[in-house]
Amino acid sequence: MQGLWLEDGRLSMRSDLPVPVPDPGEALVRVRLMGICATDLELRRGYYPFTGIPGHEFVGDIVAAPDQPERIGERVVGEINLPCGQCPTCRAGRGNHCERRRALGIRDHDGACAEYLVLPLANLHRVPDPIPDEAAVFCEPLAAALRLQKQRPIQAGERVLVVGAGRLGQLIALSLAVGDFPLQVVARHPRQRALLAAAGIAWLGEDQVTAGAWDLVVEASGTPAGFTLARQALRAAGTLILKSTYAGPAEVDLSRLVVDEITLIGSRCGPFPAALDRLRQGLDPRPLIDDRYPLAQAIAAFDRAAQPGALKILIDCRDAA
Amino acid sequence: MQGLWLEDGRLSMRSDLPVPVPDPGEALVRVRLMGICATDLELRRGYYPFTGIPGHEFVGDIVAAPDQPERIGERVVGEINLPCGQCPTCRAGRGNHCERRRALGIRDHDGACAEYLVLPLANLHRVPDPIPDEAAVFCEPLAAALRLQKQRPIQAGERVLVVGAGRLGQLIALSLAVGDFPLQVVARHPRQRALLAAAGIAWLGEDQVTAGAWDLVVEASGTPAGFTLARQALRAAGTLILKSTYAGPAEVDLSRLVVDEITLIGSRCGPFPAALDRLRQGLDPRPLIDDRYPLAQAIAAFDRAAQPGALKILIDCRDAA
Repeated sequence: MQGLWLEDGRLSMRSDLPVPVPDPGEALVRVRLMGICATDLELRRGYYPFTGIPGHEFVGDIVAAPDQPERIGERVVGEINLPCGQCPTCRAGRGNHCERRRALGIRDHDGACAEYLVLPLANLHRVPDPIPDEAAVFCEPLAAALRLQKQRPIQAGERVLVVGAGRLGQLIALSLAVGDFPLQVVARHPRQRALLAAAGIAWLGEDQVTAGAWDLVVEASGTPAGFTLARQALRAAGTLILKSTYAGPAEVDLSRLVVDEITLIGSRCGPFPAALDRLRQGLDPRPLIDDRYPLAQAIAAFDRAAQPGALKILIDCRDAA
Repeated sequence: MQGLWLEDGRLSMRSDLPVPVPDPGEALVRVRLMGICATDLELRRGYYPFTGIPGHEFVGDIVAAPDQPERIGERVVGEINLPCGQCPTCRAGRGNHCERRRALGIRDHDGACAEYLVLPLANLHRVPDPIPDEAAVFCEPLAAALRLQKQRPIQAGERVLVVGAGRLGQLIALSLAVGDFPLQVVARHPRQRALLAAAGIAWLGEDQVTAGAWDLVVEASGTPAGFTLARQALRAAGTLILKSTYAGPAEVDLSRLVVDEITLIGSRCGPFPAALDRLRQGLDPRPLIDDRYPLAQAIAAFDRAAQPGALKILIDCRDAA
């Protein structure tokens, strides 16, 4: 099959890749659409060692499922973690944190930037008919956005700030916009601001961030400057949720965390059913789509996604050369 | 009156200090005992600028209270924060985080290492008769220890580790020892270990800390090495409570916090009534007392408290020269 191949930080298009064979409990999925995420770009930059097919945001169709043939034909999205199922962490029900977990397109398991992928049937969630492919492909990052409200339910009236209005920041903002609390988003670029405004979400510039004025701040910029700004924006005894990863360690004033009694919460993957519910209820991430490429032009798509200010770039994996 | 004076990081004994005069709503307290805390030692090292009488852990007697003369004669302990009462933070009920707050013996308000101090009546809690002075003087740090269970209630069966077995670590361990969960404490010095063992609390050496083996870790060492050890000991999706302040910023791998979905909680001052309850119910901090000095020898007491491995050093403030 055709697919994108990552090795030693170099991407290449290959047409000699074998169609993967599902193990017991797994399904073969024909990929419709794949979305490029910051993690994919970081893999390319060599932040993590990964050799294989990248990509973990997708929507596709089950075309083979030896254990559950009745699921063939389902249009699905998929959770990306493949826990070992055996270790104490898995047995405690925290498979997403299994130390031996593989992850679709990220660790020891080929990803979605190809014509086919395999995943355990348990990872695959049927997409309700009314949700178009172009919205369903956002399910994974939207689930990640929704995760924070699972970890730290937001109370009515709490002042909430999102720092960063890129791919993830926009989705987080959309996921929070229906809440019973005032929401503001720090956005730098005109296009980011226009998207927020179109969704009825208040934005402000970095220079408009008043120190200590928010009860809960979500850091979604992934930059040290964004972390510093988020920390400044937070009131004493407030909560700072970290949704982005960072290149290298950061300098943190732990004493201020203690004196100000700050709660810092790291937040990663989230609940797919909740994300599908939100998409069905009308949350529309499609304005975030900047461009769409056929699979044969996946390298150009990755280049485009790495440009400053780029939001979501999709790859049509049925459009093989 | 006689008292200890801190100026430009230098301590001096003075006998020419004026007896403080209570403002409306305040009381004059004759100090019985005062305990030396790490913060006092840091003030002396010049970590914070403070000029005046240091000391914030005390037990004493109300000897004047213009607004509530009926409280004269009460034996009391006192909360150390003096919020402004006017700002939005105070009006929101978070006076302990008022940015303009003064703090007994720490910021803009003379402390307890003297014959007398003043505090608002609202800060002063009557000590139940059965609690001896030598236990009551631990009320402030014990309240700080109890604060963490208010911020993050511990579930039955959670594996809890305290890193650090100095003054604060021992009190935290005592406060947690009655819980319905397994507790272990990382202790370095033989005396720290003996104290824990005598209280029936399991200790272990730094080299016995298994990575990822605890659900909740309390960092009470105040050292970067202790923070690193605490982080290693914590399982994914676990909670790390910071009870100590640190000299200077620390390098923190924020990405690991995100990927492992760690919750980090800064924790400071706590509830005095709960601490008095625990003391009345039999929590006995007196084995932590290493030595006791008369007020006239307060500088020697501070020197003693700064020695490695020193636990609690008390000063008898009624024993003026």
